[in-house]
Amino acid sequence: MTSASNTQLLTHATVATCASGASDAELIEDGAVLIENGEIRWVGTSVEATSEFAQCSLPTSSCSGRLLTPGLIDCHTHLVYGGDRSIEFEQRLMGKSYEEIARAGGGIVSSVQATRAASAHELMQTALHRLDALLASGVTTVEIKSGYGLDLDTEARCLTVARKLSEHRPISVATTYLGAHALPPEFTNDREGYVDFVVNQALPEIADRGLADAVDGFCEGIAFSTQEIARVFEKARALGIPIKLHAEQLSNLGGAKLAASFGALSADHLEYLDEEGVVAMAEGGTVAVLLPGAFYYLRETRKPPVTLLREHGVPIAIATDLNPGSSPVHSLIATMNMACVLFELTPNEVLRGVTVAAAQALGLRDRGQIKPGLRADLALWSTTAPVGLCYPLGHAPCQAVWFAGDLVRGQLP
Amino acid sequence: MTSASNTQLLTHATVATCASGASDAELIEDGAVLIENGEIRWVGTSVEATSEFAQCSLPTSSCSGRLLTPGLIDCHTHLVYGGDRSIEFEQRLMGKSYEEIARAGGGIVSSVQATRAASAHELMQTALHRLDALLASGVTTVEIKSGYGLDLDTEARCLTVARKLSEHRPISVATTYLGAHALPPEFTNDREGYVDFVVNQALPEIADRGLADAVDGFCEGIAFSTQEIARVFEKARALGIPIKLHAEQLSNLGGAKLAASFGALSADHLEYLDEEGVVAMAEGGTVAVLLPGAFYYLRETRKPPVTLLREHGVPIAIATDLNPGSSPVHSLIATMNMACVLFELTPNEVLRGVTVAAAQALGLRDRGQIKPGLRADLALWSTTAPVGLCYPLGHAPCQAVWFAGDLVRGQLP
Repeated sequence: MTSASNTQLLTHATVATCASGASDAELIEDGAVLIENGEIRWVGTSVEATSEFAQCSLPTSSCSGRLLTPGLIDCHTHLVYGGDRSIEFEQRLMGKSYEEIARAGGGIVSSVQATRAASAHELMQTALHRLDALLASGVTTVEIKSGYGLDLDTEARCLTVARKLSEHRPISVATTYLGAHALPPEFTNDREGYVDFVVNQALPEIADRGLADAVDGFCEGIAFSTQEIARVFEKARALGIPIKLHAEQLSNLGGAKLAASFGALSADHLEYLDEEGVVAMAEGGTVAVLLPGAFYYLRETRKPPVTLLREHGVPIAIATDLNPGSSPVHSLIATMNMACVLFELTPNEVLRGVTVAAAQALGLRDRGQIKPGLRADLALWSTTAPVGLCYPLGHAPCQAVWFAGDLVRGQLP
Repeated sequence: MTSASNTQLLTHATVATCASGASDAELIEDGAVLIENGEIRWVGTSVEATSEFAQCSLPTSSCSGRLLTPGLIDCHTHLVYGGDRSIEFEQRLMGKSYEEIARAGGGIVSSVQATRAASAHELMQTALHRLDALLASGVTTVEIKSGYGLDLDTEARCLTVARKLSEHRPISVATTYLGAHALPPEFTNDREGYVDFVVNQALPEIADRGLADAVDGFCEGIAFSTQEIARVFEKARALGIPIKLHAEQLSNLGGAKLAASFGALSADHLEYLDEEGVVAMAEGGTVAVLLPGAFYYLRETRKPPVTLLREHGVPIAIATDLNPGSSPVHSLIATMNMACVLFELTPNEVLRGVTVAAAQALGLRDRGQIKPGLRADLALWSTTAPVGLCYPLGHAPCQAVWFAGDLVRGQLP
């Protein structure tokens, strides 16, 4: 091994490897990580590194004992959209009902209208603004769903913008087509017609243009039934696109079980998930993506079945659900705090939830852990333990970020 | 009026004056503010400013329509302390009970121990770190309580450090002596002896050294009774120091009524406040300081009586309660969001709660509103309405801060 500008040894870090198969953050005290050509080449202790690489005179940086984690992964967002629904938030606080607001053109319909009206440039500018907030949480991979366009043009425009975000910032973007998010106004009296459109026109076209890494749906009384979602999933399977599902958020329709039967990457929300659904997810290898931001903003009281998920070994991921209506949360760090306070997950579980489990929820095997051969997406923090990320609220603990081996944010202490 | 380097005209701002007596943020659309010698000299519309100051060729900056508010005031914090209680948070999430943690030396006792052991330099460094996080919320005045030392030396050291923070950052600090926070270990079997100590030794000495702008207590089953608090208040009154009280957080002991009967500046927490207490506060001119961060971290379900406070015209302030145990909240902006989501206050109420009402809770008449003669403590935001501060979570909306007329943070858009 020779010293090269694309090689860097990080030493004296508390390395949270989040290694596979473990139930905690798998810390290496006084750990070291060798980065080479954008990948993690070697992981061990600083003492081992000293003897292993003594002859190599590698560029070496001390992390001064601080916590080094995989770059964080926000595996469920709706980051690209038009418009602003803050006014509805204020109206509700001033006593207007959801119904009054909806009758006045508010709710998801208003986001659809504003998103359809927005140019790709406008969508890009507002998305970059939100993404910049998210990057402050040490995020190196973000999933972004469509679903505020619903028509083919707007959905394709949103997914294209999502893909292009990575040309402007150090971020990997996983895109998800969420046509089955809501019934668009032009199909108000023709549910079947809209599902036909998604299945026969939109999804094949989106797939053909390579715009979606996954297909998602919203299975709920106010959205789509399991039968309707099953049609979308069958098409996705035929096209070879992985699936995900918004399931059991407001009621238990058995969406998670359906998703698991299709081998879904993840089922998301899950407040009303029952043991049958948990077992199905365990068998299907489906990750549980919990979204405490939406739980918080909607003032929900029913929590996802964390104990059952643990008992059955279902991996738990945590995400912001960043969206204009029910979760305008721009910080994955704040979301990690909420996962502890509101869902009573432990800091170790939460760290795994935004690294290894989040990578699994996106079907990405090349990241989410600190181990040889994976991408050198790393984050360094102003703390020495996972709880230091999760306990305070409103702090800014991210000190440095490496994206595919390049230091793209902050500096070493 | 002549142009001078200490004169500046801000134009094209959405000015939230938070003027006295109103129930909303009192917006001036396309507003203008003239700053002179560290004070607000004139407030009006940009059109009026153009005709009024046409001859003066004043240095003028456009705020591009963005929201200009008084600098924010965090009127209840415990920002100076030693130690770190994050480990207890993790232990509780891993299933340990409060009792087990307390038996192992955790809880407030651990903060007292760590604070007593910390030098003034250590206390200053950690406090500056927390203060820097808080300043990102556009805070220009912060209240800081003692209460983690309990013995005279440590209480005085903490209050001295709190006072000196303003030598290192652009911040006004209001200090509060909170000797009656908890019973220190050396008085475990002598409650009366500790109250004697506070009343006869600590408080007179603290007053004599000019270390406290107010005196506070914690009136609760697990802390001090109304009778014990009354003794502290009588002494404070004799010494001419304004009072405040932690009251009705976990039960209704009538602390707010007691505080109001002494003309307290504020009663704080108030989840269990009843109408009798609300009426007493209205009559006593006592501000209700609500602390959603502690409510959130403690997973409380009983909310303060917001409707009653409104009905009786009690001013409502909002604060972080930044402390090591029950509210490690470092963002007043996040706290404003919680006040909306958890307590269902409106964004206008919340903005008044961190400006004019917070100033009143500290007895400060020279700030908290944008009107002529007051300090030119101002904050400019990346939004055009108060709801834009309160709706998203985990964003960083503060664009510029003026402290006594000096631009100390950010820049104009």
